[in-house]
Amino acid sequence: MTLNRFMARLTTWTLPGMPEVRPGDDLVAMIADAARAAAEPGDPELGLLDGDILVVTSKIVSKAEGRIVAAADREDAITAETVRVVATREHPGGVTRIVENRLGIVAAAAGVDASNTEDGTVLLLPLDPDASARELAAGLRALTGARVGVILSDTLGRPWREGQTDAAIGAAGVHVFDDLRGSTDAAGKPLQVTMPCVADELAAATDLVKGKASGCPVAVVRGLDRLVGELDLPGAASIVRPSERDMFRLGSEEARAEGVAEGYEAGLVEGRGLGYSDGYADGFAEADAEDA
Amino acid sequence: MTLNRFMARLTTWTLPGMPEVRPGDDLVAMIADAARAAAEPGDPELGLLDGDILVVTSKIVSKAEGRIVAAADREDAITAETVRVVATREHPGGVTRIVENRLGIVAAAAGVDASNTEDGTVLLLPLDPDASARELAAGLRALTGARVGVILSDTLGRPWREGQTDAAIGAAGVHVFDDLRGSTDAAGKPLQVTMPCVADELAAATDLVKGKASGCPVAVVRGLDRLVGELDLPGAASIVRPSERDMFRLGSEEARAEGVAEGYEAGLVEGRGLGYSDGYADGFAEADAEDA
Repeated sequence: MTLNRFMARLTTWTLPGMPEVRPGDDLVAMIADAARAAAEPGDPELGLLDGDILVVTSKIVSKAEGRIVAAADREDAITAETVRVVATREHPGGVTRIVENRLGIVAAAAGVDASNTEDGTVLLLPLDPDASARELAAGLRALTGARVGVILSDTLGRPWREGQTDAAIGAAGVHVFDDLRGSTDAAGKPLQVTMPCVADELAAATDLVKGKASGCPVAVVRGLDRLVGELDLPGAASIVRPSERDMFRLGSEEARAEGVAEGYEAGLVEGRGLGYSDGYADGFAEADAEDA
Repeated sequence: MTLNRFMARLTTWTLPGMPEVRPGDDLVAMIADAARAAAEPGDPELGLLDGDILVVTSKIVSKAEGRIVAAADREDAITAETVRVVATREHPGGVTRIVENRLGIVAAAAGVDASNTEDGTVLLLPLDPDASARELAAGLRALTGARVGVILSDTLGRPWREGQTDAAIGAAGVHVFDDLRGSTDAAGKPLQVTMPCVADELAAATDLVKGKASGCPVAVVRGLDRLVGELDLPGAASIVRPSERDMFRLGSEEARAEGVAEGYEAGLVEGRGLGYSDGYADGFAEADAEDA
């Protein structure tokens, strides 16, 4: 299939034959081997080329890094990975905890993962996914000679929409945003606030071929050379919005409960006629005046 | 490039030469023409084939459907499209309103769009994006003979993560979820809660080639035949999580403010010694009775 020169094209495929990953495994060598094996005789294009982006399921990085704990300790592990509880909800099987983990990522169960793990174990996210991605990208560049980028993906739920999509939790050698701020749209108007998170879009795109159950944890993306760059580009940590700037830093029930407690105290003071001076709503102070 | 038979592959490309869309235009004919023009002589593969999925930027559907209003009426248009305010935030340029629109989609400015529009105008989302997608899919199937699926995409921000990704707001002839509930992972464990939103992942994947500024509003995705089905499959409306089941139905500040008001009333009653027995609601009822 040839391409009209005006067309943009992206192709993504999985690397077949990746063996099960165990603690201490050399992922760089395993991925390079799988990429080489994918290149059939007489068809060198399926190896790795300059500008390719590898999207690696973070789960295999966790396994290689030995981020495995006993399933019996799952709840403790979630607690240990949590820096802030965002929302909780009880359901018949227990309690879902949406938390901000030590990476700043807001995820159910802090990203602690019980699928595709050995019986009796759960996986923690890599300690530093951007560093892991950098190590993979540097290693693959050195071993294959191809200037590739690397993204580590994880599966995340999201507010307001059912289901999950894969997103980027680590990145190296690839731009995580296609920063269009300051450029113009086709009509010449400035695109002020548009900043597509291409790292998340790459993770989502490759989930379509990797699937969840197929044992294909690595996909290659070809056709986005423009996004590949130096290894010290900002990583996926730059995707995380600091909670103090987030309009959804707390679940609605949790935020409401905070408000009820705060409002109750204020109302109590007011009702007892004790008054108060600072803090609340000037509205309350005005109400005082009107009551009086 | 040939493919090892064990590999999964997805290819997506943009349709070049789509003319500017105007109210009343026949999008089916325009897309079919662009797909045919993309098929170079001797290379029929670039036409549309069974199992292809077209991802169409909803903006051009809005234009074809005449969903255009004067920019001066933008704030009124947002209000008209809004069924519920989720969160608001002031910034130097004005106020950002995150709202649930009449489609149930939570989006900044209700999805009212001022980019890639003619000067002095803004675009509303299609009245019924699933119906629009169904019309396009049915028309393209009839005109080209290829059993294609259609997704309408829009650009959405998201909590907790910077930037935007494209997501599906309309769909027809394509499964919007790859429902893995009840299947097993590679280790044989049940994948209970995993339900990848492939429609959103398709929208994200094609944004990588469509870009925002390039005038390429239509992309073809090939390689996911398994997701293409009947025209009456559930559309993108099935992606919307009803707000009563959403842990983030309100912004944190908005939910907190609700709680403060509720708590204050309860505290006031308590502080005045009016008492209340069980729950705030009862407390309010009693307070009413005593007031009377």
